[in-house]
Amino acid sequence: MPYVNIRVAGTLDKVQKAKISRGVTDVIAREANKPPESIIIFIDEVPHENIAKNGELLTPPK
Amino acid sequence: MPYVNIRVAGTLDKVQKAKISRGVTDVIAREANKPPESIIIFIDEVPHENIAKNGELLTPPK
Amino acid sequence: MPYVNIRVAGTLDKVQKAKISRGVTDVIAREANKPPESIIIFIDEVPHENIAKNGELLTPPK
Amino acid sequence: MPYVNIRVAGTLDKVQKAKISRGVTDVIAREANKPPESIIIFIDEVPHENIAKNGELLTPPK
Amino acid sequence: MPYVNIRVAGTLDKVQKAKISRGVTDVIAREANKPPESIIIFIDEVPHENIAKNGELLTPPK
Amino acid sequence: MPYVNIRVAGTLDKVQKAKISRGVTDVIAREANKPPESIIIFIDEVPHENIAKNGELLTPPK
Repeated sequence: MPYVNIRVAGTLDKVQKAKISRGVTDVIAREANKPPESIIIFIDEVPHENIAKNGELLTPPK
Repeated sequence: MPYVNIRVAGTLDKVQKAKISRGVTDVIAREANKPPESIIIFIDEVPHENIAKNGELLTPPK
Repeated sequence: MPYVNIRVAGTLDKVQKAKISRGVTDVIAREANKPPESIIIFIDEVPHENIAKNGELLTPPK
Repeated sequence: MPYVNIRVAGTLDKVQKAKISRGVTDVIAREANKPPESIIIFIDEVPHENIAKNGELLTPPK
Repeated sequence: MPYVNIRVAGTLDKVQKAKISRGVTDVIAREANKPPESIIIFIDEVPHENIAKNGELLTPPK
Repeated sequence: MPYVNIRVAGTLDKVQKAKISRGVTDVIAREANKPPESIIIFIDEVPHENIAKNGELLTPPK
C-alpha cells in the first residue's frame, strides 16, 4: 500500500510525470517487495514563490 | 486537535465538500472521542494527470 | 484513488481505528462517488508534546 | 534537513511569503540548531472552500 | 528542490531504504532534470494497523 | 486556520519543541495576519536512517 508524494518546484509535462511515475513505482516495487498495483503516487507542482531554502523564496520579491 | 487531509482525483463541488467535511468530522468526533470544533479538514483536489497507480498516470499521455 | 491522512493527538485503540476507517471510507465513497476499495487511509498517532496550538505544546515543559 | 509545510487558508502576497520563510527559518535554525541552508519550506495556499472546522467549510455553500 | 515522502506499510531494513533512496533520486533527477543533491526523501514506516483500504485496517481487530 | 508540519532529522527535547512552536506561531500570526490560537503545529521527529539527500541516507548502511 505504498503512498508516495513528490513535490517539485514549478511544472512538469505529462511525459515527465509518466516517466517519473513508472520509474519510482518500479524502484519501490523491486526494492521494497511491494506489488506495483498497490503503489499510489501524487505529484504536487508547487510555484517557485511558494518554496523557500535558507530563508529565501526561490523567486524572491524585488 | 485532529487534522485530516483528504486528497481526491479531480474536483468536487461545494456541496460534496460540505457533506464530506460534516460526515468525516462526525465519525472522528464520535469514534475517537474528540470535540468536533477541534477537527480541521483540508481537501486537496489533485488533477488526474498528477496521480499514478501501478506506474501509470490516471490520464496517461498519448 | 482518494488518500486520507488522519493525524490525532495521542493514541487510539485498534477498534477505534477500525471504526474510524470504516466510517470515513463510507462517507467519502458515498459523497464523492468513489469506489470504497480505492480509498486508502493512513492514521498518524502523534505524541501530545509534538503538537502545538496557540504557540503552546499540548503538554508543555514545566 | 528540516522540511516545513505551511498550509494557510486563502492567499498570501510574495512579501508575506518571504517574511514568513525568513522568520520560520530563523526560529528553527536557532532553536533546533540546524544550518539555515538545510531548511526547506513549502507554503500551500488552500481555498477557503477546501478547509473545514467543526464540520463546516470556512465558506459553506448557501 | 524536490521533496519526496514515501509511506510504506510495516518496516524496511536499512539496505532497502538505501536502495529506494538511490533509485528514486536517480529517476527524479533524470526525468525531472533536477540536481540529485537537491532531492530530499523522507520514508515513513507505518504500522499495518494504522492503514486501511476499502474501510478495513490491513490488520483488523479480531 | 494555518496548519504547520515541521519534520526534523532526529529528536528534539521538549524545551526545543516549545520554543520552536512559540516562535513559528508568532511569525505566522504576525506576517500572515492570522489569530495565533488558530495555528496548529505538528512536529515529526524522523530517524536519520529514514531521510535521504542526494540519494544517500543521512546514516547509510555500512
